[in-house]
Amino acid sequence: MQIHPLDVILHKRDGLPLSTAEIEALVRAIVDKTITDAQIAAFLMAVFFRGLNPEELAALTKAMRFSGETFDATPLHTFTVDKHSTGGVGDKTSLLIAPILAAAGLASPTPAGVPGICVPMISGRSLGHTGGTLDKLETIPGFDTQLSMPRFEEVLHQCGAALIGQTPRLVPADRILYGMRDHTGTVESPFLICASIMSKKLAESLNGLVLDVKVGSGAFMPTYEKSKFLAELMVSTGELAGTRTAALLTTMDEPLGRFSGNWIEVWECVDIMKGIRSPMSADLIELSNVLSGWMLFFAGKSPSPEAGAKLADEILLSGAAYKSWLQIVAAHKGDTSIFENPAAFHKPTATRVLKASCAGYLSGMDCTEVGWAVQRLGAGRTKPGDPVSAHAGIESHAKIGTKIEEGQPIFTLYSEDAALLDEPYRMLAATIEISDTKPTPQPLVREIITRDTLAL
Amino acid sequence: MQIHPLDVILHKRDGLPLSTAEIEALVRAIVDKTITDAQIAAFLMAVFFRGLNPEELAALTKAMRFSGETFDATPLHTFTVDKHSTGGVGDKTSLLIAPILAAAGLASPTPAGVPGICVPMISGRSLGHTGGTLDKLETIPGFDTQLSMPRFEEVLHQCGAALIGQTPRLVPADRILYGMRDHTGTVESPFLICASIMSKKLAESLNGLVLDVKVGSGAFMPTYEKSKFLAELMVSTGELAGTRTAALLTTMDEPLGRFSGNWIEVWECVDIMKGIRSPMSADLIELSNVLSGWMLFFAGKSPSPEAGAKLADEILLSGAAYKSWLQIVAAHKGDTSIFENPAAFHKPTATRVLKASCAGYLSGMDCTEVGWAVQRLGAGRTKPGDPVSAHAGIESHAKIGTKIEEGQPIFTLYSEDAALLDEPYRMLAATIEISDTKPTPQPLVREIITRDTLAL
Repeated sequence: MQIHPLDVILHKRDGLPLSTAEIEALVRAIVDKTITDAQIAAFLMAVFFRGLNPEELAALTKAMRFSGETFDATPLHTFTVDKHSTGGVGDKTSLLIAPILAAAGLASPTPAGVPGICVPMISGRSLGHTGGTLDKLETIPGFDTQLSMPRFEEVLHQCGAALIGQTPRLVPADRILYGMRDHTGTVESPFLICASIMSKKLAESLNGLVLDVKVGSGAFMPTYEKSKFLAELMVSTGELAGTRTAALLTTMDEPLGRFSGNWIEVWECVDIMKGIRSPMSADLIELSNVLSGWMLFFAGKSPSPEAGAKLADEILLSGAAYKSWLQIVAAHKGDTSIFENPAAFHKPTATRVLKASCAGYLSGMDCTEVGWAVQRLGAGRTKPGDPVSAHAGIESHAKIGTKIEEGQPIFTLYSEDAALLDEPYRMLAATIEISDTKPTPQPLVREIITRDTLAL
Repeated sequence: MQIHPLDVILHKRDGLPLSTAEIEALVRAIVDKTITDAQIAAFLMAVFFRGLNPEELAALTKAMRFSGETFDATPLHTFTVDKHSTGGVGDKTSLLIAPILAAAGLASPTPAGVPGICVPMISGRSLGHTGGTLDKLETIPGFDTQLSMPRFEEVLHQCGAALIGQTPRLVPADRILYGMRDHTGTVESPFLICASIMSKKLAESLNGLVLDVKVGSGAFMPTYEKSKFLAELMVSTGELAGTRTAALLTTMDEPLGRFSGNWIEVWECVDIMKGIRSPMSADLIELSNVLSGWMLFFAGKSPSPEAGAKLADEILLSGAAYKSWLQIVAAHKGDTSIFENPAAFHKPTATRVLKASCAGYLSGMDCTEVGWAVQRLGAGRTKPGDPVSAHAGIESHAKIGTKIEEGQPIFTLYSEDAALLDEPYRMLAATIEISDTKPTPQPLVREIITRDTLAL
């Protein structure tokens, strides 16, 4: 029996459960362009109001996942695992986690000689107030994020991790729906967000997936409850698809680590992998280790996530992660010589320091506003396709809860254009709060969602 | 401040009241095509779920009404009044009401010599299971439904009524939204139905408007409550726009009158206007008189709607309506000679009689199914632009509540293609119900909605 897209829209509109066949037919029609943009938009808005039950969400995610070319890790006979973050400011954990896991995988090869863990990471670009892994990697001279699928597999086989960008052939249904949601007011549906994220991640052919779902003033989701709801949807969808999935609700109330930008974030990670630990990077290192710990636990390399986090820290401190990093970058044709003195490669042409206007405790900021300031300095983009500045960004000199003196530096702003400093400076000055009483800091990891907590 | 369509979508989606400026900007963007189809669809679906408050509905109707060319009756200095039906089977009241009102208007000219009442009727075509006035009129050889605006005004001035079709320049926003709703699952929103109907009717520059909102198995709205809700929305919107408006909830459980089709409906009306009253036409005459009564009352030609209905019947019986009819048809270049023997002009090439399979009382039918049977015989169309058969249709031989004998004719089916008889015959046979007990017939007029009943 032929399924008409209009009937699928009407069923969703009227709150009737959609069959898997209906959802598959709809996604096929979206990719084959036999459904109009107006019909896609009507469906998206109906989903915004009606939601999706777990079976519908699983079916939509699966249909999107298989809507185009997919990466198949089966021939590698290894444990594939990845991490996804809902987006933050200064969130560069991917640049640490990939080499940590790769090092652990190289240290425990399969009988066939493949790394025992592989991280087939497909990343995104900066948009809005959040940064993007691809933009950071591309500040490394020569680094190629556009590997072919055979080369992607080769790099994985050789290094245990590879980091590439979305291609038009991977998950084309999401590319269409994502572009459509943006201008039809259907971005915020947790069901559509879940299907978008999970279809892309599951297309990496993953055995394990750890999700970093941000909460706080810099999070994409507006409330803790909505972040948690999204985390639950994603864990349930991942597990229904046969991928071990955990979601960590983590605090994003201030930039993570020392730097927020592009090259400066790579620099911070290189320092950490070399054993140079700025006190400003403590939260970044903690979060990377916790997320890596879950990935190592899923991969069977540690008896618990906690033991995994300890193992991750050891891999960092031993230099094994840095060795993996150099291999991965080289395999992507990146110039590793600049890691010898990363500070020297940081060449902003304009700098300004924001100092505390009074003494007290740094008690808060609107972290989304901080993200926009980073974007306005040139590190982010206004629309897809815009170039980004390699050297723009901010350096954090104090974390929330720190006692500060009047005139003490809070942020240093970097840009490649002096004219771009004024507005971000004003934005940052306006958003930081200094109070007389010491604020109670939020723990970095607020809650963990797994199949056990969901009783799946 | 510039208004972005996306913000209007988001506000409606989130249940915030839209300002008149927002609605005007949206309708302008729809007509100027500066908004995508996807955005229009997202807005329509958001309205489907959120509805519109009275101010929003009035603003949307007004913005649509003035979205293109409008008819301005002010220069005529007369009372303009029209009727609109939500669509029925065999519903040909417009063909009687226009000449009745025109006759009343001609009998009471203004000091400037213009008819004291003018009916500037802009009608639609058959679609779905319901018939369309234009298709019926166009069976009259030569009848031109595409008058220019100056000619439309001329015919009104001369005859007191003119009947034309929608033009691309009249209410273009509705044309775009109507086409969009059809394939995005947003047809059934009473708010969008109201805006569509009322924007087109109010574009006729009306002082008075009477709405015939059908209830029962042949009605467009699925329940009595939904029909009533739509009626209330339309009366409130009309009165807010300064047009005296009444809505009559009328029964549509079986075809209205004797014939359902195109030419045969004209024939039935010509007979009535000549004073030939088949018992099968009693419901049609009653409804035409009641609707005309409200229009005459609004126009100040009768002290009450009831007195107006009596006056309408007198105009019919006196032959004045027929005289007006001949004038109107002639002004539209129609050949009035065929009215001399309308039965002779009825030339179906295939006929079949559906007889009662048992004795009893005709107790019911699915009137929508009867409408579809009429359409399948060739009288209606599957999609806009399809041709319709002038001579296809059905003749009713019994009304609900009638005692019938086994083998007594219930319907005669007419078509211009013998191959088209089988399916409608089966549909009609399957839907008519004959029972042992006499059913309690519904009154024709069930309820009347006015500014008084709404306490506006």
